[in-house]
Amino acid sequence: MTVTPSSAGAGPSGITGWRDYGEPRLPAPLAAALEAFAEHGYHGTSVRDIAARANLSVPGLYHHYPSKQSLLQGLLDLTMTDLLARSEQAIAEAGPEPVAQFDGVVESLLRFHMYRKEQAFVGSTEIRSIDDRYRDEYIGYRDRQQYMVDDIVLAGAAAGDFTTRYPKDASRAVTTMCVGVSTWYNADGELGADELISRYLQLARDTVGYQG
Amino acid sequence: MTVTPSSAGAGPSGITGWRDYGEPRLPAPLAAALEAFAEHGYHGTSVRDIAARANLSVPGLYHHYPSKQSLLQGLLDLTMTDLLARSEQAIAEAGPEPVAQFDGVVESLLRFHMYRKEQAFVGSTEIRSIDDRYRDEYIGYRDRQQYMVDDIVLAGAAAGDFTTRYPKDASRAVTTMCVGVSTWYNADGELGADELISRYLQLARDTVGYQG
Repeated sequence: MTVTPSSAGAGPSGITGWRDYGEPRLPAPLAAALEAFAEHGYHGTSVRDIAARANLSVPGLYHHYPSKQSLLQGLLDLTMTDLLARSEQAIAEAGPEPVAQFDGVVESLLRFHMYRKEQAFVGSTEIRSIDDRYRDEYIGYRDRQQYMVDDIVLAGAAAGDFTTRYPKDASRAVTTMCVGVSTWYNADGELGADELISRYLQLARDTVGYQG
Repeated sequence: MTVTPSSAGAGPSGITGWRDYGEPRLPAPLAAALEAFAEHGYHGTSVRDIAARANLSVPGLYHHYPSKQSLLQGLLDLTMTDLLARSEQAIAEAGPEPVAQFDGVVESLLRFHMYRKEQAFVGSTEIRSIDDRYRDEYIGYRDRQQYMVDDIVLAGAAAGDFTTRYPKDASRAVTTMCVGVSTWYNADGELGADELISRYLQLARDTVGYQG
């Protein structure tokens, strides 16, 4: 399986290409909140901690983000819109065939969970800390990502490309294995990024029963 | 694929059967710590919170667990020894064939992550909160579980039962998809436990390339 190597550059805001990852370009308060939530959890972090990490006074921080909850929501919003935009771009670039779209969305999920590990970790651990009013919106983002994969796997199964008897379960299992990479991937580890992606693309294809 | 229904009873301490799950039988302080850590995270929880949930005075709690860290370690110890004992029992019961052992360990991983969701969640989110002196021991537990699956998949690949080109990666991907069930499984959901297990056994077999 051929994997296009990732380019080094990253766009200043938004994304220039779904494979491009540099340092995350988060506003300073959100970068500070990410760091603090990843280390101590939402409930173990104070607004004072975040202000100190961001080199801001507490009133200065409140000027932009009126509460700790608004920092969490701002962070999750940027995380999910980035993930969704990359997935959509990968799928669009793949053209109309389910197999190519599947490879595209799997590769995009993998790259995101390799290069945005901390954001993925906070997103998965702090659902408990989201205010009720925002929870549905956040779950909606996650559902949109899952439905993108579901639609492709169901289309591939209908076309006879994927032979799994359980396309929806396979879609969730594939998503889970891509997301799980965030818990152990190490950019300096033995397995290079492109080799990891190549192997996981193969495993994902096996899981949906692609016999290509 | 045939799935043996789980029995209702659960042993008073230790396990009577690897498929048996009742309410977790944790000492009251650890049950209280589990509840608090799952809701607010380790850093967001005080020993006072845990004592109150356990109906104990703070000195009474300290008598058995001299620190919040000892509560976390006690909880993780019981969680991991229970998981490992069940996996070992499932594998032993399966006999010598890699395919049967694979089905056994996958089913055991699934059941644990369906019926011990909160413990699995705290285990995966609070690695950051473990003291350095205990971290190696905890990682050792997790490695032992992963190596059990690795050994089976490698043996099955060597025997020609599993055709995946990447047995070690497939083993980790299968483990990840079983662990991931803890993030969404709902005992009252549309998919019954035995149907879920049956589907995931098939997906796990597909991931390692079992052509049986």
